[in-house]
Amino acid sequence: MSKNNHQTDVVIIGAGPTGLFAIFQCGMLGMKTHVIDALEATGGQCTALYPEKPIYDIPGFPTVAAAELIEHLEQQAAPFDPLYHLDQQVTGLQQESNGNWTVTTSKSTAISCKAVIIAAGAGAFGPNRPPLEGLENFEGSSVFYLVKRREAFRDKSVVIAGGGDSAVDWAMSLPEVAKKVYVVHRRDKFRAAPESVARMRSLAEMGKIEMVVPYQLHGLEGTDGKLEAVIVKDLKGNERSLEANILLPFYGLATDLGPMADWGFELERNHVVVNPTTCQTQKPGIFAIGDIATYENKLKLILCGFSEAAMAAHAIYPLVFPDHELHFQYSTSQGVPGE
Amino acid sequence: MSKNNHQTDVVIIGAGPTGLFAIFQCGMLGMKTHVIDALEATGGQCTALYPEKPIYDIPGFPTVAAAELIEHLEQQAAPFDPLYHLDQQVTGLQQESNGNWTVTTSKSTAISCKAVIIAAGAGAFGPNRPPLEGLENFEGSSVFYLVKRREAFRDKSVVIAGGGDSAVDWAMSLPEVAKKVYVVHRRDKFRAAPESVARMRSLAEMGKIEMVVPYQLHGLEGTDGKLEAVIVKDLKGNERSLEANILLPFYGLATDLGPMADWGFELERNHVVVNPTTCQTQKPGIFAIGDIATYENKLKLILCGFSEAAMAAHAIYPLVFPDHELHFQYSTSQGVPGE
Repeated sequence: MSKNNHQTDVVIIGAGPTGLFAIFQCGMLGMKTHVIDALEATGGQCTALYPEKPIYDIPGFPTVAAAELIEHLEQQAAPFDPLYHLDQQVTGLQQESNGNWTVTTSKSTAISCKAVIIAAGAGAFGPNRPPLEGLENFEGSSVFYLVKRREAFRDKSVVIAGGGDSAVDWAMSLPEVAKKVYVVHRRDKFRAAPESVARMRSLAEMGKIEMVVPYQLHGLEGTDGKLEAVIVKDLKGNERSLEANILLPFYGLATDLGPMADWGFELERNHVVVNPTTCQTQKPGIFAIGDIATYENKLKLILCGFSEAAMAAHAIYPLVFPDHELHFQYSTSQGVPGE
Repeated sequence: MSKNNHQTDVVIIGAGPTGLFAIFQCGMLGMKTHVIDALEATGGQCTALYPEKPIYDIPGFPTVAAAELIEHLEQQAAPFDPLYHLDQQVTGLQQESNGNWTVTTSKSTAISCKAVIIAAGAGAFGPNRPPLEGLENFEGSSVFYLVKRREAFRDKSVVIAGGGDSAVDWAMSLPEVAKKVYVVHRRDKFRAAPESVARMRSLAEMGKIEMVVPYQLHGLEGTDGKLEAVIVKDLKGNERSLEANILLPFYGLATDLGPMADWGFELERNHVVVNPTTCQTQKPGIFAIGDIATYENKLKLILCGFSEAAMAAHAIYPLVFPDHELHFQYSTSQGVPGE
């Protein structure tokens, strides 16, 4: 077997919180796992997009930072020795003649397994990019979809675009360093938490930010990647030019299932339809959990993804051990994991 | 309204881990809750039966003591000001003419609400008692279903009966203080973790405990609540008399739904049948979550109960706020709970 060819019980696609907990659940049932992720690190959106954001609804954690939750989950999974294949996208899924599945990746990794758990969240995700001419010339120099270091915007004129949490959160925070902050949104209603929106509006009243509503992004002006102005337009076609060095478009994530979209599952608005109590897709042996999975009344909550991981692992058990009978045990009746 | 009459959005029956998390989930959706429990404290089995037992499969906690988990969950629920009605059993459930429900308890508490979540675990639970003549004369003095303080058995002769974790755990621990330890089980196979069973057997080989298998409890001898001997019998009818001061029968919990069994739900082996994605019973407005609820492929895991709490809360929302549309939000996009 070449270095890139592997064999295991279960391949998990996606190393976000749900995928990490699936390692643990499979491990508790004696099943080995390999995990594939497009990102360079585990944690999915939690570490890539909002590592320091507090999460309030993980059971037993009145509050936990996203990155901290990921650390705990990785530690909980560690005794089961998962093998991580990071920084590579899944490219193919093929059934072998013996019924096993082979998953291949963009780095020519090939893993043969008894079952696959797709825990890919929004897919190999990226930001929703506004449809502006010449946008690519400014990306990375004047246009950013993430704020890594607030300090980078000191004394700059910044245009924030969008109406969700990211837009509102940064509208509250950036005035402390930036020279000028505009908030561009296509309507006067914001989707963020009411309390945050109220705080943003009071900053506007104090003159610390300027609300540019209802306006939409229309064009960019500048040379050599250096932004000089952002052109916005209202519904009646009136234009305004906002003098600015930085544009931060916060339009959410583009979900991209990539090749998985062609694997022949039933899809519902880019989500994989599964049985709600086993998380199995229409293809026997292929399961989907977490945000990528859907069924009637599905809630996109991390804590529901955890439960789905448990259900998938139990449903997979007879596929990996067809001759064993699973004596179901309660939460507390198992020995120390990995011992 | 009298002191014992209350009105709220949701009544939660059971203050174990699942019930506590249901308070939080209802609270996040703006719904007020009252909680009823037969025990004097919150936590259900976690605090009443195994407060110090480590749990390994709560997502994000590589290990957590049962009582500690309960503390976290109560803290997480606290901002939503639940009202606890402890030390009282539910006695009745009646639908009012306006469609609301009234729940009554053994302490004459009456709570009118829009929806009920039954999170009663195994019901108002108690130990399974062995069918021995005169057992009640020895209970509390020589027969115990729980070990509160190991020291109480110093220099005593103890009979442990059962084949599960409790029996095996105490068989490993009590020889350190007791004069003599017998383990009585109806067959030579034990249901506890293999590693623990192996350790128990090696203690038997060293003469520290005596395995009495395959035998069943048959009778008790002694006077005035002071046990002198435990009579056991094998399948062929052979009797043995074990000289002993203490009997510890570990036969698990008796599940008792109490009056809930007569509320007209579909029951399956003492469990309430629910829709797996809403947790609603056949009675609109009445939901069941956690160990008491069942559906195809149901797993009795605390972490699945958490997810069920979230599903029930979301399904209840339109009953409490018929005119609001629920704009579903992700885990992290909400403000600080209770603020």
